[in-house]
Amino acid sequence: MISVTLIGAGNVAQHLFKAFSISQKVLIHQWFNRDLKRIECYKNDVQITNNLSELNDADIFIISVSDDAIVDISKKLLFSDKLTLHTSGSINMHHLDKKNHRGVFYPLQTFTENSKLDFKDVPVCIEVERKSDYNIVKTLALELGGQTLRINSDQRAALHLAAVFVNNFTNQLFRVAHEITEAQGVDFDILKPLISETAKKIQYLSPYMAQTGPALRGDETTIKKHLELLDENMHKSIYELLTKAIKKTHGV
Amino acid sequence: MISVTLIGAGNVAQHLFKAFSISQKVLIHQWFNRDLKRIECYKNDVQITNNLSELNDADIFIISVSDDAIVDISKKLLFSDKLTLHTSGSINMHHLDKKNHRGVFYPLQTFTENSKLDFKDVPVCIEVERKSDYNIVKTLALELGGQTLRINSDQRAALHLAAVFVNNFTNQLFRVAHEITEAQGVDFDILKPLISETAKKIQYLSPYMAQTGPALRGDETTIKKHLELLDENMHKSIYELLTKAIKKTHGV
Repeated sequence: MISVTLIGAGNVAQHLFKAFSISQKVLIHQWFNRDLKRIECYKNDVQITNNLSELNDADIFIISVSDDAIVDISKKLLFSDKLTLHTSGSINMHHLDKKNHRGVFYPLQTFTENSKLDFKDVPVCIEVERKSDYNIVKTLALELGGQTLRINSDQRAALHLAAVFVNNFTNQLFRVAHEITEAQGVDFDILKPLISETAKKIQYLSPYMAQTGPALRGDETTIKKHLELLDENMHKSIYELLTKAIKKTHGV
Repeated sequence: MISVTLIGAGNVAQHLFKAFSISQKVLIHQWFNRDLKRIECYKNDVQITNNLSELNDADIFIISVSDDAIVDISKKLLFSDKLTLHTSGSINMHHLDKKNHRGVFYPLQTFTENSKLDFKDVPVCIEVERKSDYNIVKTLALELGGQTLRINSDQRAALHLAAVFVNNFTNQLFRVAHEITEAQGVDFDILKPLISETAKKIQYLSPYMAQTGPALRGDETTIKKHLELLDENMHKSIYELLTKAIKKTHGV
């Protein structure tokens, strides 16, 4: 049995708590959060606290707080020589206080409050300072049921950056499409099957091979027509830049 | 039984042929293509021809050729007063020659050669010149098994434009992510669950509500770090513009 103490109660922490709760190999020993209210509803399932001095021993301490709070909270921990992991995509492992053994447990997925997520679909990226800590962290990650992979800090930074493109920026393109359809009184829902298929196609085709559309064909008539249809300058700029990018990638 | 003659043999036409072939209510009567080779493998299933003068009567003629060939081929048709539909998202219905009754049968989806597609996931957008033609076109569309909706030309143009954002441009963001991960020797595949989840989330959350990430949080530290990591100017420009767009949408 691996005993784990959770520090923080954001989306990632909440999802981890639920996922580990049903594991036979992991016991959530304690759950710390500065604001107790956020975890009060779990007090019958786990020992909760908002006092760092109440934290007692565990195999692994998972610090799952906002990026700018990681350094501070890791400094404030009163114990040492324990394995502490943060869950951030962008914070260097060495920002954790060096009195403890350090590592990263980065679940590469988008977490939304109150929305169900199967951890089978969440690759966990692992980084550890001490080689000997790798096995227990890997075991912990495997308990979630998905893929695990060991990466270095540069690779994690690249993945976190790439995730912004495929998730945040993609979602903003959906938003633009929403604005375009609404303006003509068309239901955005009509685009949902296309959105699904776009994501599905990428599971077996490279983005290069999956590309279609006017920019790829160098179809200037359609491109001009589209630019004329766009009222918003921001939409126009996005259209122009991504059209240019597609042409560049494909040598059009 | 609705008899249909297919004109053209691109991706959309090929997919339509396969889908209608298994319908009990639709008979593909003839299939025309300038280059016979492309449809020769179907000669046992349907009468094929590359000669417009060989086309005989049918209830509906579906012109599924490239956008810039639609006007020309509709002019060259030797019959008149028949129902002719094109399948393009961006060409005005009135570009079809007016000697025939005109309409549009626009399947809003991304079609890739040799890749299976369930028409249940393809909304068909219908436009007809004569009200009395609507029912037969709707029946035809319903035979494909998916959603159908009647829209006007402006709405179709908006949908086609929005489709470029959610499909072509989204796919280019996947390509950028591919380049970023490759550069650090990380397998792009690791991002696939995130890509799937991004599309899944939009099925029940609006793009506005689904947004997450550094731009939404106004997290300038992460944004700065990301911009420093990007080597390619094109990647930087896309990052900057979409970050600005998210901030604008959410008033950050």
